[in-house]
Amino acid sequence: MDKKIKILGISGSLRKESFHTKLLKAAMGMQFEDAEVGMADISQLPLYNQDWEANLPASVKELKDKITMSDAILFVTPEYNYSVSGVLKNAIDWASRPYGKSAWSGKPVAIMSGSVGMLGGSRAQYHLRQMMIFLDMHPLNKPEVMVPMIQDKFDESGNLTDEATRAKVKEMIEALVVWTKKLK
Amino acid sequence: MDKKIKILGISGSLRKESFHTKLLKAAMGMQFEDAEVGMADISQLPLYNQDWEANLPASVKELKDKITMSDAILFVTPEYNYSVSGVLKNAIDWASRPYGKSAWSGKPVAIMSGSVGMLGGSRAQYHLRQMMIFLDMHPLNKPEVMVPMIQDKFDESGNLTDEATRAKVKEMIEALVVWTKKLK
Amino acid sequence: MDKKIKILGISGSLRKESFHTKLLKAAMGMQFEDAEVGMADISQLPLYNQDWEANLPASVKELKDKITMSDAILFVTPEYNYSVSGVLKNAIDWASRPYGKSAWSGKPVAIMSGSVGMLGGSRAQYHLRQMMIFLDMHPLNKPEVMVPMIQDKFDESGNLTDEATRAKVKEMIEALVVWTKKLK
Amino acid sequence: MDKKIKILGISGSLRKESFHTKLLKAAMGMQFEDAEVGMADISQLPLYNQDWEANLPASVKELKDKITMSDAILFVTPEYNYSVSGVLKNAIDWASRPYGKSAWSGKPVAIMSGSVGMLGGSRAQYHLRQMMIFLDMHPLNKPEVMVPMIQDKFDESGNLTDEATRAKVKEMIEALVVWTKKLK
Repeated sequence: MDKKIKILGISGSLRKESFHTKLLKAAMGMQFEDAEVGMADISQLPLYNQDWEANLPASVKELKDKITMSDAILFVTPEYNYSVSGVLKNAIDWASRPYGKSAWSGKPVAIMSGSVGMLGGSRAQYHLRQMMIFLDMHPLNKPEVMVPMIQDKFDESGNLTDEATRAKVKEMIEALVVWTKKLK
Repeated sequence: MDKKIKILGISGSLRKESFHTKLLKAAMGMQFEDAEVGMADISQLPLYNQDWEANLPASVKELKDKITMSDAILFVTPEYNYSVSGVLKNAIDWASRPYGKSAWSGKPVAIMSGSVGMLGGSRAQYHLRQMMIFLDMHPLNKPEVMVPMIQDKFDESGNLTDEATRAKVKEMIEALVVWTKKLK
Repeated sequence: MDKKIKILGISGSLRKESFHTKLLKAAMGMQFEDAEVGMADISQLPLYNQDWEANLPASVKELKDKITMSDAILFVTPEYNYSVSGVLKNAIDWASRPYGKSAWSGKPVAIMSGSVGMLGGSRAQYHLRQMMIFLDMHPLNKPEVMVPMIQDKFDESGNLTDEATRAKVKEMIEALVVWTKKLK
Repeated sequence: MDKKIKILGISGSLRKESFHTKLLKAAMGMQFEDAEVGMADISQLPLYNQDWEANLPASVKELKDKITMSDAILFVTPEYNYSVSGVLKNAIDWASRPYGKSAWSGKPVAIMSGSVGMLGGSRAQYHLRQMMIFLDMHPLNKPEVMVPMIQDKFDESGNLTDEATRAKVKEMIEALVVWTKKLK
């Protein structure tokens, strides 16, 4: 009986040709002995409104269920305005509610980001890490995956073809698996 | 000819009885010799999606117009998960786009936050300030308005009755007016 | 054979009557079944200078040895200018060097801070946590110990007499012990 | 009568062949119509100790005097452990004291950093900016000068020979002059 570590990936970008979604899909397509990477869709969530907590929207319930059934989380976020995307933050806010019923608690987590410039979305990552203190999540320290010039890493079909980036993504997933087992 | 400084307030919370919206409304109800505080509604914005930039949704256009016609911005944000609300970040992201056509550039800005605990939402404020570097906005240094135990500051009709908080809000708006004039 | 978890405390304040040093000493004076809290002196370190790395000052060697022999770290830091004290950062810098020979790697860590105001030094804590990513240390998520109005928590002899604060310090040390065992 | 804007540069690194000190010296060697860049030495400061505030060390008094006589500040800092150097923070702490007698208040400021990797010390810059809120300093938003692979930008005599970096430094000083005049 080999039970694989279930990693839930969430992309912070909604556009169809998002490099971040492609980066997540590259991770999903890799083979790991004891892990598999899935994906949650956050595009159908409404804007967070506490008034709706008594009767959570179906899209929120579905997201929370997916998180709960996962062993670890993989955030793949663009950096907008020197922080995480509002889209990702909105998903984080919803799944953390109602108070005392957060789906995130205790989850090991890894972060990937990229940018068209040289900093690879690093500023977004440190904001995300601060959120995880409150959420009581356990972010991986190393490796940090910050992909500079992300627009150059894929072929025309959207496959991650840059070998250095592929290796980094693989290294991260493997480190996340080790980290997840340690924290069990 | 007295031209008043136009301050556009934006609340990061959508619930009907939001303390932050009430805090903003308290500022709107105060009399200032040379300033007036208005409000933008961000509840109708869709989740940000770059694919829609070529044809901005009407709610985004309206928000951008309001920002452009304002002299200064007042963010009033709750702290969710040790950062600004996804709802506010989503509005910030939309109004900063498309690239090169941000509505925020050069605007003086002040921030108010509150919390049911003792820290008054301070963690959200520093994330917001980091965003403003990229957005080329000019945040006020002092006073910082962080309202602890915000739930105790209003009467049953939603009026801000706590005198110390009222004084602080007034002091901030007045400082923002001075700062705005200096930067013109 | 009972081997106690050795926790090394470091105070970021050098003044004789430092509340933070007293807070650390309060933790040192508490009884724990399976842990003991010690203290490192960082007042004799020179200002960090990479030119001296080939021949580390004795005070640096001593600090690094103490860290290496500890199972976990407890930082107790004041907040100066919205960040950790330069004194503490200087100690962190020294003990992280030379490159590849950091003494901090892999250590579990907890943070306590205080302030004369209401925020309890929280801003310093988040800067400290960012440092720990690079240092590959593992900070405790909860509890966070941020002591507001720290000047009111001690008696004239410097004993921590505030019961709520004592309970919080005890809770933190116990959580750090659990966290340290989990990460072994 | 042409009064030049006096910019005080401070390097956060003490080693003899520091790239950051060389970067500062490059700025000092450039010609500006209405500005001159000087430098303060912070290597002789003791570790900050509040007990000595009643009788400030001579090195602290000298630093505070230099700051007071300057129109603007230029921090040039390496990034150590994902934050500013302890050496620079120690200088910032000293010059901000005693309470109510900070030398930094109201000063316009710009930041340059570099790194041997690709991120150019950016993480240190955002910590520095948070300090400036408390210090009531006014940091320049743009340009941000983050020099990647700083080790490759100088010739053997320590001259900044990389043209793109020279242009960026020049652009920053000129923007700081405009910003300083605006805030007068």
